[in-house]
Order: sequence, then C-alpha cells, then structure tokens
Amino acid sequence: MGFRTIEWKGDSVKILDQRRLPEEVRYLYCKDAPSLAKAIKEMAIRGAPAIGVAAAFGIALAGRKSRAQGLEEFKEELENVCRLMEQTRPTAVNLFWAVGRMRKILHRSPSGEVTDIKSQLVEEALRIFQEDLEVNQKIGEWGKALIRDGQGVLTHCNAGALATAGYGTALGVIRAAWAEGKRFHVYVDETRPLFQGARLTAWELGQEGIPCTVITDSAAGLLMKEKMVHLVLVGADRIARNGDVANKIGTYSLALLASWHRVPFYVVAPGSTFDRSLPSGRAIPIEERSEEEVTFIYGRRIAPPGVRAYNPAFDVTPHDLVKAIVTERGIIRKPFIKHLKKLAGS
Amino acid sequence: MGFRTIEWKGDSVKILDQRRLPEEVRYLYCKDAPSLAKAIKEMAIRGAPAIGVAAAFGIALAGRKSRAQGLEEFKEELENVCRLMEQTRPTAVNLFWAVGRMRKILHRSPSGEVTDIKSQLVEEALRIFQEDLEVNQKIGEWGKALIRDGQGVLTHCNAGALATAGYGTALGVIRAAWAEGKRFHVYVDETRPLFQGARLTAWELGQEGIPCTVITDSAAGLLMKEKMVHLVLVGADRIARNGDVANKIGTYSLALLASWHRVPFYVVAPGSTFDRSLPSGRAIPIEERSEEEVTFIYGRRIAPPGVRAYNPAFDVTPHDLVKAIVTERGIIRKPFIKHLKKLAGS
Repeated sequence: MGFRTIEWKGDSVKILDQRRLPEEVRYLYCKDAPSLAKAIKEMAIRGAPAIGVAAAFGIALAGRKSRAQGLEEFKEELENVCRLMEQTRPTAVNLFWAVGRMRKILHRSPSGEVTDIKSQLVEEALRIFQEDLEVNQKIGEWGKALIRDGQGVLTHCNAGALATAGYGTALGVIRAAWAEGKRFHVYVDETRPLFQGARLTAWELGQEGIPCTVITDSAAGLLMKEKMVHLVLVGADRIARNGDVANKIGTYSLALLASWHRVPFYVVAPGSTFDRSLPSGRAIPIEERSEEEVTFIYGRRIAPPGVRAYNPAFDVTPHDLVKAIVTERGIIRKPFIKHLKKLAGS
Repeated sequence: MGFRTIEWKGDSVKILDQRRLPEEVRYLYCKDAPSLAKAIKEMAIRGAPAIGVAAAFGIALAGRKSRAQGLEEFKEELENVCRLMEQTRPTAVNLFWAVGRMRKILHRSPSGEVTDIKSQLVEEALRIFQEDLEVNQKIGEWGKALIRDGQGVLTHCNAGALATAGYGTALGVIRAAWAEGKRFHVYVDETRPLFQGARLTAWELGQEGIPCTVITDSAAGLLMKEKMVHLVLVGADRIARNGDVANKIGTYSLALLASWHRVPFYVVAPGSTFDRSLPSGRAIPIEERSEEEVTFIYGRRIAPPGVRAYNPAFDVTPHDLVKAIVTERGIIRKPFIKHLKKLAGS
C-alpha cells in the first residue's frame, strides 16, 4: 500500500485526511489530543478500528506533552483526555476499548512514576496499532476462503486499510483472497451520505488493481436479483453478545436484501469490536449526525432551504441475518451467543 | 401550485427545467421537436406521465411547424418525429402510449387534409395534457383514504406535479389527503443518483406546506424497523399485466423492506402506465444511464478516476410485493392479473 492511514511521529500523529480523498492525498499532523479528537469527530479519520488507534495515540500524545507536576495531577489531566476521546463518537466500541486499555496503563502502572507512565502509554498505543495490523492480516487469512473465483462480492462503506491501522477487515479479506490469486469482481456501495464507498473503498481497490464497480446504495437489490452478487462482506462498529451488529447506515437493509436473495452476508471484525457488556444490539447507541451531511454535498445544497433531514450514521443488523462473523480467531458461525461466549472465554 | 411543469405555448413548449431545481426556477422554451427530445433525454423534464405529455407536445409542435407540401410528405416527416420521441427514453411506457395516440391522429384523420391534421395533433396533445391532470386528481381522490392521521408516509423519487401534467400520482394522493385535513409526515428518499427526492419532492411538499424529512435511500430500512413509516407510496414507469412494476432504481429494495416489515407498499399510476402487451415485468426494458451520473455530482468527482460505475435507472418490483395499485378507476387489489384484466375490458 502506498499510504499510511495513521502514524505515530513522536511529537505528533500523522493521519491521512480522508475527507479529501480521492481528490487529494493530504496528511494532517495532530500535535495534541484535542486536534486528534477533532479529526475523529469530523471524520478526517474514521472506521471503528482506526478511531480506536487514533484515540490511543491522542492519549499517548497528551501524556508525552503533559507538564503535570505530580502523579495525581497527571492522572487527572490524562483522565480528562480519555473522556475527551470517548466523547468524539458514540457507536464504534473499539474507541472505548482502546481508551480502556490506555486507562489501565494510567491507573495500574506498577512504578507510579509519571515518566514511566508516559512511556508506557506510548508503548501501549503503539501496541494497539501494531496488534490491529496483525489482527487484520489474520482476519484476511481466515476469511479468504469465503471468496471463490468468478464471484461478485458486494461491500458497503469502507472497511479497508483506511478504516484500520492498515490492511482492513472486509477489504482485508478481499485483499488476502486476491493475493492468493483468486479473481473476482467487487461491487462497491457508494454509501451515502459521505460516499465512503465511492471515495475510499474504490480508491483502495484501485491502488491494489482489484477490479470494482461503484453502484448507488439503492441498486444493491437489483444486483442481487440479477445474481451479480454472490456474497456480501461488511465491517462492524459494535457487535453485541448475541451477534447483533451495528455498522454504517444501510447495512441493515443490505442484510435483509441478502437474506431474501439467499446471498450469504458476512461481518468482518476484530475482537475489539465485540461489546461483551451488551446482550443485544438494542442498547447500542446510534450516532445521529448533522442534517447538512445529507442536504449539502461539497458545500452545494441538494434539498431546498428549510427542509429537514434525518441522518442516523449507523443501524443495527439482527444476528439472524448474519451468516458468519470473521474474526482473527476464525470464522464464527451460529449460534453466535454460544460461539462468541466460547471465544471470549478462550 | 406556483409552478407549471409543462405548458403548450402555440409556437413553443415551455417546460420547467428540473435539473436546476431547487436552486433555480428556470423555464426552457422548446421551439421544435428535437429540442423537446433533448429535454426528455437529459431529464430537464422527467416522470413517466410528464414525458408522455412532452412527447405529444413535441409531435404537435413538429406538425404545426411542418412545411411539408403534400400529405405523404407530412406523414413521413411526422412519423420520423414520432420515432425520435420514442428513442428518448426506453422504460416509461407513457411515452409510447402518448406517441401511439398522436400516431393514430396522424394516420387516421378522416379528411386527410394536412391543415386539419395539424390542428387535430395539437388538440390531441392538449387532450393528453388535460386528461393527465384530471386523472391525477381522480387518483388522489381514490388514494387519499390510504393515509391516516399521524402516520409516516415514505416516498421514493418524485411522483409529483413535476412528474406529470400537474398534481402528481403518489404526491397527488398525499396532496389530496392533506387537502382533506389529514395530518401526517412524509419521509422522502433522496433518490440517488439524481436526487429527485431531495431536490424535487421536498421542494413540491415545501410549496404545499406539507411537513417532510429527507433521508438517504439506505436509511429506509431503519425507519421501517423503528416503526416511523406506516405506508409507502411510489409512482411507476411501466406496469405489466400481472402487476409487476418498473420504477426508479431502489423501488424494488424498498418494496422488499416494506414486505419484511409488514408496511403496506402502494403503487400509484394512471392507466397510461399499464403495458397490456407484457405478461410480466421481465420484458420491461431497463434504461442504463451514464456512469458519470454516479461518479460525479455537480461536476465534481466522487469516485477516483478510472473507476467504473453501473447505473441502471430503474428496477422491477414483482407484483407479490405490491399491496395495491391506485389508479383513476379505483384502488386495484390482488389478484392483479384478474382485476387489471377487468379494468382493461371495462
């Protein structure tokens, strides 16, 4: 890959500004936690695993740059940064998972020395980054068997290298299958309102030379009816204990369409996306974003002035519509509640 | 209504340029048949009944402006204009129906005098226009009983005054229910790729003061799941003998989602939309439009250069997903094949 989604630079965090893709490959240097929080909120960086990494880097950066005198002052300052990060976006649990890991370092450091904690925070953030990369590759290895030569693969939004530390989840599976020599075609839902499919997924696939075709989100049903799509691969922002999946708005519709047409619908996600505190998807908080994301495109008005829009950024797909969940530990099949429990215990 | 979709001006046809809405209310004056054909092709005017009217006006205009010397020359010239009109867009059958009516006048005129035929062509085109208006109002009267106070009504694309000679089909039903004093909320699918929902339907509803909310096409499933939508009303471009319906891309997905959630799905269309030559929807030609409609928005690129897009403009909804079809003759319920036959015979 000729790009890096996010990179630790010691005194800053370098991120690829995804709002400008594919027109421009431009990097942002975030020099403190608030600028990283802003980048997450405004979706310069997005994708559940990637924003987990970004939050961890933000906390590590805040630690490094802290001028706090004593341990208590340092902890209080960093605790505020953890909360700042948690307030950026509500749905993807990877964010809270990553902040949770950083918080553990902060509060359970054996030495209790501020300088030690500072370097441990950096190490932990880098570990979260590195683990995500490796986990993605493992997911790809497990998942690649799902794709067969000559198939049409449909994906929604961007669950690629741009949504993770690198490589990708759903696109990681596609990458691994392609690398193995399989030849197939990817259909990319453009993914309104922010076009992550058309802008980001098509761009990533283009970089790898994997053939793809962009469609409007509402054409997916027709493609399934015409038997152009043989499987669906999507990422996830949060998965409950029973296998219910929160993911980009439109995923639920896609899963229903797939179920109706008997097209297998796979969710691809790392362990950090599982929320073991939630028995079902009902309690997953769904972020509602601004109306202007729907009514304006690149600053130009689509809907007439005064017209309201409703813009839920995610929806929840009930587990019965999901054929299997691909994780770094293998492909989890039904009953999810039993197999996910086993996974958590192992 | 403060606007006219299309108007016969004697030596020209005035049409509201729908590509510029809602930013600008700008009228085009088409002075000959080729400029009307262009307006239909490029969707300055769109919507199945409206393009039928436009084609009829184009033929009438060509008649009026013809300098043909004899009857045979006139007929040949006008026959070419009929064919030109038929080649503009393939899916909406109203276009072929209207051209068929004009062709009858051309070939079966009792006097055989060119001057007579010229004025008969104008009269027939004005009759097609006027009938469409009246038919729309009748449809509204029949359909308004389907909407109840406090309901959420979902519609897709634009089946309004802008898609017809005036008043509208699906929006005609909404208009009639509103005029009767019913109070409800309309959810408008933005309708990619050309945003007819966000641009046109929201604009029309705004003019009438009917409250509405625009959503992305892929949010419709979530709204149904959350019980925000109690019925779906859509227009149609062609309906086969068995009740299969061709309509704007995404209608099929919407019908499936409605069926799954037990939300009644109604098609609203005049008699001119029924194609009695087709036993089922399988033979309906589906227009495929340019890739750039998907990959560019207002001249700005969404997908990276070189990426392909697939842009079918319509899809076919099987009759079993349709609860009823609202026409000027009443609400047609299942079995469609039987009831539509009766209607055709009556």
